[in-house]
Amino acid sequence: MDTLFKNVQQQKQVPLSEKVAKQISDLIKERNIGTGDKLPNEFELAESLNVGRGTIREAVKLLVARNCLEIRRGKGTYVTEELGRVDDPLGFEYVSDKARLAEDLYEIRMQMEPWIAGLAARQIREEEKEELQRRCDAVEEQILAGVDHYEADNAFHKYIAECTHNSVLPEIIPIITYSVQLFTRYKDPALLKSTRQTHRAIADAICAHKSAEAEHYMQEHILGNLQNIEHLRETLNAADKG
Amino acid sequence: MDTLFKNVQQQKQVPLSEKVAKQISDLIKERNIGTGDKLPNEFELAESLNVGRGTIREAVKLLVARNCLEIRRGKGTYVTEELGRVDDPLGFEYVSDKARLAEDLYEIRMQMEPWIAGLAARQIREEEKEELQRRCDAVEEQILAGVDHYEADNAFHKYIAECTHNSVLPEIIPIITYSVQLFTRYKDPALLKSTRQTHRAIADAICAHKSAEAEHYMQEHILGNLQNIEHLRETLNAADKG
Repeated sequence: MDTLFKNVQQQKQVPLSEKVAKQISDLIKERNIGTGDKLPNEFELAESLNVGRGTIREAVKLLVARNCLEIRRGKGTYVTEELGRVDDPLGFEYVSDKARLAEDLYEIRMQMEPWIAGLAARQIREEEKEELQRRCDAVEEQILAGVDHYEADNAFHKYIAECTHNSVLPEIIPIITYSVQLFTRYKDPALLKSTRQTHRAIADAICAHKSAEAEHYMQEHILGNLQNIEHLRETLNAADKG
Repeated sequence: MDTLFKNVQQQKQVPLSEKVAKQISDLIKERNIGTGDKLPNEFELAESLNVGRGTIREAVKLLVARNCLEIRRGKGTYVTEELGRVDDPLGFEYVSDKARLAEDLYEIRMQMEPWIAGLAARQIREEEKEELQRRCDAVEEQILAGVDHYEADNAFHKYIAECTHNSVLPEIIPIITYSVQLFTRYKDPALLKSTRQTHRAIADAICAHKSAEAEHYMQEHILGNLQNIEHLRETLNAADKG
């Protein structure tokens, strides 16, 4: 009885479009519609889920907002490559104390990333080594060109996580490296130089399957950034007052 | 010139409702509208952002889908407590090989959670100890009552992360403990008994500020679960064939 009552209540609270969004997302799984594939059209969906086309349209909008579907104008609705992964999953954009956020993220990176680098050194495959060095090159080129290397930096750290062959780590990296973008704006020449050097040392150690070295250089790299946090805090405080 | 061209292109691709959603979310930050607070009504929003009410409605729907806003019928639109955090941020629901996912998550938990327990033992405040024990009791009660202890288990592990006073760790815990729900369905009496014992040992060690012990018992706890992974894989394989 209790459960029944709960179910009725829950059904009352969930809007129809939300329920249909769930049904569409189940359908994607059942029919094995993969990332990048086209979804059946509105008409077919309305028919197979037995709801109006307006409801389908609302449900599709929900799934677009959640990064599960994308509408390509004139072509139809497609399953995204990201399939439900969102850009800022923990809502960091809304955190007001960005300096504290950066400190907390660095505390986590300090624990996670040396371990990830060591794991990558043990697990990297022969055919991945060239790509790792290429991503290391990309960061270096952007630093030398004096442009913001945030995305290239993220791509480098993310690829190291991919070399671990743990399917979740590459998804966690963008979350914990969020703080990097708070730093790449400062063009402290000393930090930029040490970033280039330690990145290369990390890539070389991973490619040589030297896990202790990979771990050590990653530690050195993150510590270098950590030591700039005080500087960041001062700059942010100054910006708040300005 | 290059940047200008890029901006125009980007503006073309982003629908109006998406741009307005961004503006509303900026407005929330600027005006310091907190979680649980009411948003200005459609009319005011349309006026201050200089767009039609239909567009506001679309943008609000986007933000509802992203868990930033919630509509309370007859009351208005409110900022959610979660402020943009989503339930399944990495889209685990769509991963087909759940056994591999569980293994990958346990590899990460094995690295993260003992460290978190040790950190909690160093950072816990006097007034948090009672709550930690209470959450430990809650899991125990549910296990003894024979009901699914998934949520209580998550709440226990999450609270340990809160005791570290790192603002990000409590948000990462639900991601890496996702795999727990794959286990709590099996009522293996030996595993349930060891869960009760190690949970208590962890809580006691944290409250006594014994970080090495907290770390050790967390390791033991996660290892106990890991050893059940083989069993899980067999069960899932059997279910696939069934």
